[in-house]
Amino acid sequence: MSKPDALTELGEMLGDRFSRSKSDLDLHGRNETYFPFLPPEAVVYPETTEEVAKIVRICAAHGVPLTGWGRGTSLEGHALALKGGISVDFSRMNRVLKVHPEDMDVVVQPGLTREELNRELRATGLFFPVDPGANASLGGMASTRASGTTAVRYGTMRENVLGLEVVLADGRVIRTGTRARKSAAGYDLTGLFVGSEGTLGLITELTLKLHGQPEAISAAVCAFDEIGPAVDTVIQTIQLGIPMARIEFVDAATAAAFNSYAGAEMPEKPHLMIEFHGSASAVAEQAESFGQIVADNGGDGFSWSSRPEDRTALWTMRHNAYYACLGLRPGATALVTDMCVPISRLAEAVEETRADIARSSIPGPILGHVGDGNFHAILLVEPGNAAELAEAKALAHRMVERALRLGGTVTGEHGIGMGKLGYMEEEHGQAWEVMGQIKRVLDPSALMNPGKMVPGN
Amino acid sequence: MSKPDALTELGEMLGDRFSRSKSDLDLHGRNETYFPFLPPEAVVYPETTEEVAKIVRICAAHGVPLTGWGRGTSLEGHALALKGGISVDFSRMNRVLKVHPEDMDVVVQPGLTREELNRELRATGLFFPVDPGANASLGGMASTRASGTTAVRYGTMRENVLGLEVVLADGRVIRTGTRARKSAAGYDLTGLFVGSEGTLGLITELTLKLHGQPEAISAAVCAFDEIGPAVDTVIQTIQLGIPMARIEFVDAATAAAFNSYAGAEMPEKPHLMIEFHGSASAVAEQAESFGQIVADNGGDGFSWSSRPEDRTALWTMRHNAYYACLGLRPGATALVTDMCVPISRLAEAVEETRADIARSSIPGPILGHVGDGNFHAILLVEPGNAAELAEAKALAHRMVERALRLGGTVTGEHGIGMGKLGYMEEEHGQAWEVMGQIKRVLDPSALMNPGKMVPGN
Repeated sequence: MSKPDALTELGEMLGDRFSRSKSDLDLHGRNETYFPFLPPEAVVYPETTEEVAKIVRICAAHGVPLTGWGRGTSLEGHALALKGGISVDFSRMNRVLKVHPEDMDVVVQPGLTREELNRELRATGLFFPVDPGANASLGGMASTRASGTTAVRYGTMRENVLGLEVVLADGRVIRTGTRARKSAAGYDLTGLFVGSEGTLGLITELTLKLHGQPEAISAAVCAFDEIGPAVDTVIQTIQLGIPMARIEFVDAATAAAFNSYAGAEMPEKPHLMIEFHGSASAVAEQAESFGQIVADNGGDGFSWSSRPEDRTALWTMRHNAYYACLGLRPGATALVTDMCVPISRLAEAVEETRADIARSSIPGPILGHVGDGNFHAILLVEPGNAAELAEAKALAHRMVERALRLGGTVTGEHGIGMGKLGYMEEEHGQAWEVMGQIKRVLDPSALMNPGKMVPGN
Repeated sequence: MSKPDALTELGEMLGDRFSRSKSDLDLHGRNETYFPFLPPEAVVYPETTEEVAKIVRICAAHGVPLTGWGRGTSLEGHALALKGGISVDFSRMNRVLKVHPEDMDVVVQPGLTREELNRELRATGLFFPVDPGANASLGGMASTRASGTTAVRYGTMRENVLGLEVVLADGRVIRTGTRARKSAAGYDLTGLFVGSEGTLGLITELTLKLHGQPEAISAAVCAFDEIGPAVDTVIQTIQLGIPMARIEFVDAATAAAFNSYAGAEMPEKPHLMIEFHGSASAVAEQAESFGQIVADNGGDGFSWSSRPEDRTALWTMRHNAYYACLGLRPGATALVTDMCVPISRLAEAVEETRADIARSSIPGPILGHVGDGNFHAILLVEPGNAAELAEAKALAHRMVERALRLGGTVTGEHGIGMGKLGYMEEEHGQAWEVMGQIKRVLDPSALMNPGKMVPGN
């Protein structure tokens, strides 16, 4: 329990933007997946960087932990206040501060969501491409190094954050990066804070790269009898340098989920869903070249469309895949896995996982960002059924071991949070201790999202 | 002066791969630009990671500084042993360890140069795109976060290093990253070491992204009467999403240098040199679209070619620009500046710089990677002429101030080394101290490339 003095001081400073109401604590104690309910002791709603710095200094003086909260869409319990303390909710810091159309960048506050940003950008001809599915906050997306369907073309948050403003554990406010497109001026602190999950500081401002809305977009779907030829199609497409904007894999179970949830009429087989961005003739050419590769690999049902309504239907369906899969088992909660391997090992990784899930009693559709070698199994468990959760965790554990055995990573895009901490040493070896050294020097009292990310924490 | 014991121990360990010969010390005390001759006390030539770790442990035990040496092509004196100690020359660690064609990555040792790598890759249909001009070592390129002509399309070393093996200051050997294309598993240590200029550890292995050799390449040159329309052409091309593989600016003085050095017949005006990569029809379309933008901006002499010999002639000329410019003043040495700004400020930055140089007594052709907002002035000074060097430094100082005033960075790609240390606080503010904290926790005795990068150092 935190010192009452700190909470009193925060309450006096923030008025009704400091809350200990049950509804606020409940809201900030929940999570999207299987982690237990873990409410903070209080929630604060800062409106400025200066307020965040003041909050941090008050907490530092009294030894009160701070955990950032964007939209709570994380899948690994990142935003849960594991050691108590306060939840710093950025929903009132949600403005677009400055758009620079010529430079194709934008300065935003961390509580802004990616959909809000893209709405504000609509008239500029520019867009922010990183798309994890959920309408996450941009601060949260930077903190977890989010990616999603478009990373194969536009990169992840790692590639799309130009600079940050960060409040450190001692209340110092620093700026990292500049609006220049590249720099060789010192350690890449922007890159260090992106993906640090709030354990090194709280992000209070982001400068993001934007991209031009493509002149034309074409999208396509195709089915395969087996996973192997689907993955081979992806590998060959990449090797031929055909620039895909999205390439998504869904397995037969996910196709079935789309059919029942979204009224699709897909054969219950593995599918690829693909999108090309470019000039009208370029996307036509790319779609044709891709169609040839599909045919060479025995895929069928290939058809492409550049009609916006077809594309929207396709990607809306893909974005709702999580809910479609939940619909396969009404009332279920999900454990969502997130392995990422070198693409040459992807077919093997998916097939082994598929077989392992088939041997279990848990439904587990598989889908993923196959151009990056990243895929998820959505393991559907009955809430409160400890045996099922244990079985799902055992499946997830074997996926992680498989990812490492095949030269990959335990998380392609969901992050560490509470779910993957136990695998950090296995993935990073002694480098994990280096992360701990960096954490301790920047947050010696372990108040920034404590209990997460580093050894000892 | 380092302890004789350490040097004796190193000599016993390495035999003839430990050297204190005058020629070796001389070679490792020189630099490509205007910094003074600064020989190390000894040079070591390790052949394995284990040897590097052993060398580091011996040096750590005796307090002997270590500075890495790749090919010595740095322009900011990075590899000079400013505080004495030993130079760790990686020329015997120059092997390609493993090519993974399906995954489009390669594992290499740090002493391999980019040209050597691309020669070895020739049969695979893949290539490593980062191209700083010089035939630098890949370890050095990672250490300085190198980029060059192709960064606008393929990214810098930041985007092209997947993972590293690093020997830390205490002799620990860590691995960062995996061969997966992305990861959200913890702090981005790969990104932290890329660009750290050997001040946090010595890179002993790199996993690099490769790219498919494009099916077709087209290249073009065009001239403009003024800098402004040339830059506007670049901005419009980027905004239209025309994917340029290279877009280079050279000013009238550089064009003149090409004419006299390479026998070119370019009008003495600002030029753009551009290259497109893709399918045959895509590059044709891109070149045509670009030609239209050039015409809209009053550019002339636009012609494009997809003949390899034309392209080779063009880029050989561009790569030799440094020597062509040196040829403008035979016997001169150069101070090469490296500012990078948001592209909306680029025309202003180049024009102010042009005018400032014109007011000086120093010849200073300007050229750069204009798609990234990055350009260089090659300030030609008489060796040993202190007044000229001071004048060049004053020009360079004003360029740096201009970069910061226009929202840019003091170095786009050359790095900090000895030349830019004095600007770190101005660019980074309190974030510079954060870099110092990271340095001190990983290298508390300040033995890794000491005297550089961080406050106090």
